Amino acid sequence: MKRLNIGLIGATGAVGAEFLKILEERQFPFASLRLLASERSIGRTLLFNHQKLPVEVTTPQSIAGLEIVFISATTAVSKDYAALVAKAGGIAIDDSSAWRMDPEVPLVVPEVNRADLENQKGIISTPNCTTVPMVMALSPLHKINPIKRIVVSTYQAVSGTGRAAVEELSSQARSVLEGKSNVPHIYPHQIAFNVLPEVDVFMDSGYTREEWKMSEETKKIMHAPELLISATCVRVPVYVGHSEALHVEFSNPMDPGEAHRILAGSPGVKVLDDPAVSLYPHPWSAAGTDDVFVGRIRQDASHPNSLAMWLVVDNLRKGAALNAIQIAEELVKMDLVRSPRPTAARGT
Amino acid sequence: MKRLNIGLIGATGAVGAEFLKILEERQFPFASLRLLASERSIGRTLLFNHQKLPVEVTTPQSIAGLEIVFISATTAVSKDYAALVAKAGGIAIDDSSAWRMDPEVPLVVPEVNRADLENQKGIISTPNCTTVPMVMALSPLHKINPIKRIVVSTYQAVSGTGRAAVEELSSQARSVLEGKSNVPHIYPHQIAFNVLPEVDVFMDSGYTREEWKMSEETKKIMHAPELLISATCVRVPVYVGHSEALHVEFSNPMDPGEAHRILAGSPGVKVLDDPAVSLYPHPWSAAGTDDVFVGRIRQDASHPNSLAMWLVVDNLRKGAALNAIQIAEELVKMDLVRSPRPTAARGT
Repeated sequence: MKRLNIGLIGATGAVGAEFLKILEERQFPFASLRLLASERSIGRTLLFNHQKLPVEVTTPQSIAGLEIVFISATTAVSKDYAALVAKAGGIAIDDSSAWRMDPEVPLVVPEVNRADLENQKGIISTPNCTTVPMVMALSPLHKINPIKRIVVSTYQAVSGTGRAAVEELSSQARSVLEGKSNVPHIYPHQIAFNVLPEVDVFMDSGYTREEWKMSEETKKIMHAPELLISATCVRVPVYVGHSEALHVEFSNPMDPGEAHRILAGSPGVKVLDDPAVSLYPHPWSAAGTDDVFVGRIRQDASHPNSLAMWLVVDNLRKGAALNAIQIAEELVKMDLVRSPRPTAARGT
Repeated sequence: MKRLNIGLIGATGAVGAEFLKILEERQFPFASLRLLASERSIGRTLLFNHQKLPVEVTTPQSIAGLEIVFISATTAVSKDYAALVAKAGGIAIDDSSAWRMDPEVPLVVPEVNRADLENQKGIISTPNCTTVPMVMALSPLHKINPIKRIVVSTYQAVSGTGRAAVEELSSQARSVLEGKSNVPHIYPHQIAFNVLPEVDVFMDSGYTREEWKMSEETKKIMHAPELLISATCVRVPVYVGHSEALHVEFSNPMDPGEAHRILAGSPGVKVLDDPAVSLYPHPWSAAGTDDVFVGRIRQDASHPNSLAMWLVVDNLRKGAALNAIQIAEELVKMDLVRSPRPTAARGT
């Protein structure tokens, strides 16, 4: 297999750390790995395969000669650098929402729509961390019995916001346990021992952008523009692991046992569903794992063609870094990686 | 107003503590207050109105002569003692699920169906702590535009389970923050920094009893047996305050602004809904208050006749103790309180 020169923009973030772990675990075939971050991280080194690698500042020059660049930084960085990488002849695999709805950019979960990679033009987006597990769990069922409507409520971990949110949860939890009060910094209200129905900004419709993303991204990935989706996205005081309560209406009646069998045979999905022994997915046990876990599959009592179910995913791994790395692996397998121009790209 | 002899079975529990606070706050008109609990609590005293009151053991004799007995204990205690209170000529207002679906027992949220109290035969049930806020928020809308289907996901505080669960959340949170591992006692899995889609026992349908209760109790209270309801009930690491994400299908289109106006004018409901300034209900701010708080009212993007919304309630107060005390207040106003026989009741 061709050994690639790869880069990681956002190497010092919460998702960046997972990228490094997963590249190591999967022995991703690269010739060189360039760790990039903002100027704040100058002078830092990160451990990879028992080696200390320096963190470099992200500049247009820093991505020169890289075949694949993973980007997990701010949306502004994604906007600029994905375009620069593509212009230089490499492929950017971007974790932000900057490019996801661009019709020229494939939005890919390899288990669901790997074929869309064939249309890539140098930028590929990986979906929102709540969209990935939903399409993983629903696409295999949709192929058998087309889905008409999805109502979903989420329970989202603070690591989706980033390292500072993880620290804020810990420090707030400590001060509550000590009987002290808190001033929130990252979220508008306290998150420790609380839940907040606000993820990303509010839109005129009353939905948040996170809720809108779940809807629009799902339709794009599943090639199902007619799907009707309503989401309520809620932040919960969990470090890692997003959970979702799903109510899914199919075109025809769907037996819960059949859904169980289909999902149990779907790549990247594990069914954990034995209520008698309290077996169902929950974030504490899903953190650090690669699969989308599905449980509590049952006939929806409120609609003859609907199922209710519950899923959990590690939002940093399959919800973000792992999915991006799997996209890169597919690009290699599909022989879609080009040799970039050796010189630095220039911004426009 | 007639001054009553009242009793509180379960005085030392989490809901019991709220009962005492609320009786004091509302200056409930009683002549005597008997605090009752299990044998474990013998010798304890509780503060009420700056006075120390002794806790007595619950026995058939202990309820003799009481006009109203609030019961917030185990289901077994409710089964026995509600019947004994009724037999002795008093009225039991029971917080458990023991009697709620009994056709002879009114299940009441005063703001919604106070008229049902007229049919009481000595036992009145107060609904589950997730049902109370849902019917408070939906009944005013249902009267204008009949509701056909409700899909609801909950975010339930540990205090709903009781004092031991509150302590377990704190002790688990402490040990996680100290990097130590936990053995769960109250819940099947760790609850600190986790969410668990299991509240009450599982039924053959795949739903939990909690989910079933939300459905069946709502239909009974709203006198709407044709309502279709599907719930997913989830325990979250919050001390006090249950939240619910609701998707509600009406018979006809329902303007979110109209729903806002109707709810803002409904007794016991407060609308907190201004996304621009992150104004919406959340449990940390709802704990210790009496209202059902509703926010995030929006047109459901997945159905033309549906609204999505979010609500939060203090599960110990309006979700339990306050609602029971309001029932007692209504009984007095409606002149439904009888004088019990002065001698002790005998069990059958």
